[in-house]
Amino acid sequence: MIRFRERVPAFLDGGDSPRALLERCIGAIEAREAEVGAFVALDLEGARAAADESTARYRTGRPLSPVDGCPFGVKDIIETADLPTQMNSPVFAGWRSARDAACVRALRQGGAVLLGKTVTTEFAAGRSGPTVHPLDPTRTPGGSSSGSAAAVAAGMVPVAFGTQAGGSTIRPASYCGLVGLKPTIGTFSMAGIHTIGPTVDHLGILASNLSDLWSVARQVSDLAVTPGVRGLPGSGHALPRAAAPARLVHLHTAGWGELDAESIAAFDALVARLRAAGVEVTNRDDDPRVASLETTLDEGVDGRLDIMAWEMRWPFEEYADRHGTVVSDILHGYVRRARNLTPADYHDALRERRRVQDVVEGFGEVADGFISFASSGPAPVGLEHTGSRTFLNYWSWLGNPSFSVPLMTVRGLPVGLQLIGFDGRDDRLAALARWSMETLV
Amino acid sequence: MIRFRERVPAFLDGGDSPRALLERCIGAIEAREAEVGAFVALDLEGARAAADESTARYRTGRPLSPVDGCPFGVKDIIETADLPTQMNSPVFAGWRSARDAACVRALRQGGAVLLGKTVTTEFAAGRSGPTVHPLDPTRTPGGSSSGSAAAVAAGMVPVAFGTQAGGSTIRPASYCGLVGLKPTIGTFSMAGIHTIGPTVDHLGILASNLSDLWSVARQVSDLAVTPGVRGLPGSGHALPRAAAPARLVHLHTAGWGELDAESIAAFDALVARLRAAGVEVTNRDDDPRVASLETTLDEGVDGRLDIMAWEMRWPFEEYADRHGTVVSDILHGYVRRARNLTPADYHDALRERRRVQDVVEGFGEVADGFISFASSGPAPVGLEHTGSRTFLNYWSWLGNPSFSVPLMTVRGLPVGLQLIGFDGRDDRLAALARWSMETLV
Repeated sequence: MIRFRERVPAFLDGGDSPRALLERCIGAIEAREAEVGAFVALDLEGARAAADESTARYRTGRPLSPVDGCPFGVKDIIETADLPTQMNSPVFAGWRSARDAACVRALRQGGAVLLGKTVTTEFAAGRSGPTVHPLDPTRTPGGSSSGSAAAVAAGMVPVAFGTQAGGSTIRPASYCGLVGLKPTIGTFSMAGIHTIGPTVDHLGILASNLSDLWSVARQVSDLAVTPGVRGLPGSGHALPRAAAPARLVHLHTAGWGELDAESIAAFDALVARLRAAGVEVTNRDDDPRVASLETTLDEGVDGRLDIMAWEMRWPFEEYADRHGTVVSDILHGYVRRARNLTPADYHDALRERRRVQDVVEGFGEVADGFISFASSGPAPVGLEHTGSRTFLNYWSWLGNPSFSVPLMTVRGLPVGLQLIGFDGRDDRLAALARWSMETLV
Repeated sequence: MIRFRERVPAFLDGGDSPRALLERCIGAIEAREAEVGAFVALDLEGARAAADESTARYRTGRPLSPVDGCPFGVKDIIETADLPTQMNSPVFAGWRSARDAACVRALRQGGAVLLGKTVTTEFAAGRSGPTVHPLDPTRTPGGSSSGSAAAVAAGMVPVAFGTQAGGSTIRPASYCGLVGLKPTIGTFSMAGIHTIGPTVDHLGILASNLSDLWSVARQVSDLAVTPGVRGLPGSGHALPRAAAPARLVHLHTAGWGELDAESIAAFDALVARLRAAGVEVTNRDDDPRVASLETTLDEGVDGRLDIMAWEMRWPFEEYADRHGTVVSDILHGYVRRARNLTPADYHDALRERRRVQDVVEGFGEVADGFISFASSGPAPVGLEHTGSRTFLNYWSWLGNPSFSVPLMTVRGLPVGLQLIGFDGRDDRLAALARWSMETLV
């Protein structure tokens, strides 16, 4: 995979350049894109021009930001002015926005290099796209940020934007062996993104390594300070220093039933490594509050679907009404679900979510975070379904930050450890993720 | 002007029909649109089809909602699927959205009849459009919701959507003799509207009468229940019952210096009528707290520009960068203003706003609302500028609800009384507006 930040010293001393790095990315695209199908649109000419400008800035020692020259991919539900935004739906075939989404704008203002738009499932919620797993073309790379994950994993870009309202960033990161961040709800501006719903959707970042991920996260956070956008805690583009956790809560939620024995064995080995490193790992056998939390999460998580369906009414109900079977059955299903709800149902679902959020926050006093799988084992065979999101839904529902960290291998395929943190503490979770990468690999 | 709600009994008994009402609207368009220039796009065929469907529903006694069959106009920064949305900018020439904005969708789901897109100033913030005042073609109808106000005043529609981040709904309502509502900030969904900024922009409603206005407001409120959208207080589509105020605060803020003697005389006469009706009207001579509030408002109101400019960075900075002089100097000016601000400046401006909001809310214990002009006198001659917003900026900045009520005439032209209420009390303000229309005309 391509790593960006570690090349910056070479950009400055002339041993490497953003243009040369971009050409390595383009080389990977030429070698693998026909098979992988990560992109729906590329702008090689624009990218080369931007990389040349970046190269010139490094030559004079004056990059615009820590992401100057960083090639990046953009999930195709995120608006870009120079490339169409088509949502993997005929409804938006050939559609163009007049502008870059706020996150894209933030990176480009920092000199980063937009390379292309990546395949998404239909509106990040419906029909799957054609992208295959870079390690095994019979398998899904995960979704809905399929193309973003595959592009990073195939060495086509060091970093790409995804989104997550269910499992759409963390799952493909897990399948493809990447680091992925689904931040606390509300962290980044969603302006210019065709979202699923304001209280369930997150801009996510998929990257080859944590330093690149964090630099991009900080750049997006710093350039979009607006009410409703919380921003990342802390400051500076450097990845927070590694911090060992004292105590982690190991959650055995419903997804556990979807795992095969080898995946469970890989997780058990990981827990053993955590314990060997001095971390106390608590589970339901040690602490009845953990068992109670697991029950609360599994009993409540379907509330996410009600909230999401309700928030999807605009604009998805209109798409469904206008376009019939051009819109997938999956999306029609959400619209039907919404039609069976009342505003009172929706507010009840919000109230129940707040109750569970408080329960989860209570664990912040006794633990540094939660651990579980970032996917239900390795990527499954077949492209029609982009995999289970059972392990991920809780945190899209509740809004807690989570990372996928590539710490397991099952039958030769990557599986991520999911690290889940507390509301607005994305920086502490990054410190924990860094520690895990430095200690447990 | 066309009045909608009062025709409903006739729709039900067959003495009138939504189609016939629409034809009266179209008649006014045929008679006056060439001169007035209220619309940038019309959909007569679609409107006739929708009106026929509505007519059929009334025939069976089953209208979809209290706005079923109501023709309406939509400011051209608000997305519509069946008509282009062009923002009065070459940047969006011919641009089409795939969907209706949430407010448009809400009306159409209730059976209302979209007749056309109305002229806006460039992005509701820049260059003026060609619309003239229906009573005097040498004068502006006010802006930025120019076409919406002119269309209602010329009898082309009973109601139209505007927006307001400065004075863009209340001012044209005042100039054109309409009722206008700028609700409490956050009342209606802004989804699908090209806004100026999330904390300064409001969906506004311009109408020939308060009943029509309130039915539309309620329909929009009821169909877009989502976090971040507060909705109208109260329930039901019926206009709140008239409620006489006990005490109103008469504000002599900076705009007073822009008024001519006849406008001041008209206002004095109105205050005399209020007093004759038993209302205590307090001003700075009676109460030093009022004088202090006026100073606070005038010293603070430029903070609106900082907040607005900062929030305009996305997407206006990109439009300015990409399109040069295709974007007006006015918009370039906002972008320059934003570039001279830091995130700390912006947060200071938000903090100062919260302080002033608290001062204003304090008056809620001693008064039913504030009164001032809804414009600096009648519509001025000339189309280049859409008039002063001095009297309106305070309430766009602070987010308080305000109505323009057509209670004055100066040199044969309408001038509105601005009624300003307290945060989230739009229903009480509507009761006051109704009382004023019933008592003071």
